[in-house]
Amino acid sequence: MTLSIYRASVPLYIRGFSQLAGIMDKAEANAAARKIDLSVLVNSRLAPDMYPFSGQIQRASDTAKGTIARLVGVEIPSFPDDEVTFEDLRGRIAKTVDFIKSVPESAFDGADTREITLKLRDRDMTLSGADYLLDRQLPNFYFHITTAYAILRHNGVDIGKRDYLGV
Amino acid sequence: MTLSIYRASVPLYIRGFSQLAGIMDKAEANAAARKIDLSVLVNSRLAPDMYPFSGQIQRASDTAKGTIARLVGVEIPSFPDDEVTFEDLRGRIAKTVDFIKSVPESAFDGADTREITLKLRDRDMTLSGADYLLDRQLPNFYFHITTAYAILRHNGVDIGKRDYLGV
Repeated sequence: MTLSIYRASVPLYIRGFSQLAGIMDKAEANAAARKIDLSVLVNSRLAPDMYPFSGQIQRASDTAKGTIARLVGVEIPSFPDDEVTFEDLRGRIAKTVDFIKSVPESAFDGADTREITLKLRDRDMTLSGADYLLDRQLPNFYFHITTAYAILRHNGVDIGKRDYLGV
Repeated sequence: MTLSIYRASVPLYIRGFSQLAGIMDKAEANAAARKIDLSVLVNSRLAPDMYPFSGQIQRASDTAKGTIARLVGVEIPSFPDDEVTFEDLRGRIAKTVDFIKSVPESAFDGADTREITLKLRDRDMTLSGADYLLDRQLPNFYFHITTAYAILRHNGVDIGKRDYLGV
């Protein structure tokens, strides 16, 4: 009844970004057909104090690269949040996935019990690698991917749940 | 570097529903303060062809109980989708969590390699328990919890990411 922490992290992030890229392709085609400037979608939000589509992608990227780097104990790659077009966002996704793929499976040895300390707004929090991944980072990743999807759906882009799930 | 499939499923669903219940408490208080009938929130959607808040909870419930039942090889409890109030939805969450908690950890022995066959619209799909949980059911669960959260945020309910994550 065991899974590896590698299996429960790397392929999930790669899959999530792959589905997201497919969703963006459909959104681009849909926007072209409706003569909607893509910047409208990039800057659209569900509430004034939520991130727009671009910010959801940036936070999904941060969550994924932060998870993998912290689980294996390497420095988190820093990407400036300077994406303003779909093409920029595709680049952000690609370099995030490239980083994730660059980490060998063997680097995850012991990652489930590795102590990970996060600096929150008001305190430090220490978690095991397993708790960090399962209780915090996976829910956070899907939060941002889903919200990106929901922003497009709210704007009438013709995508469906299967585009998100991929199965 | 191992996790159990129990650890990667049961506590995640229980935690997700617990955060959702807390979010609903805040939404109820906020709606009362703004003199908004709760049925407005229950029936709100982000797009005309997406489920309303109530449907998101029902699908989160279906995803969670379906996952656990299929992983351990028991019949999936059937709940009618008859919830129309916050109180009803709290009941749906409670009975879903009760079912999940009723399954002993020992029942998950071998669940990662158990063959699970799903009837999709157009075909059958067979997956291992691990692939079923990680590639399909966790993303699907967080999809519905996040969309429920996003519906409330879109309606001006004063909740934040920490209410979703719980950390």
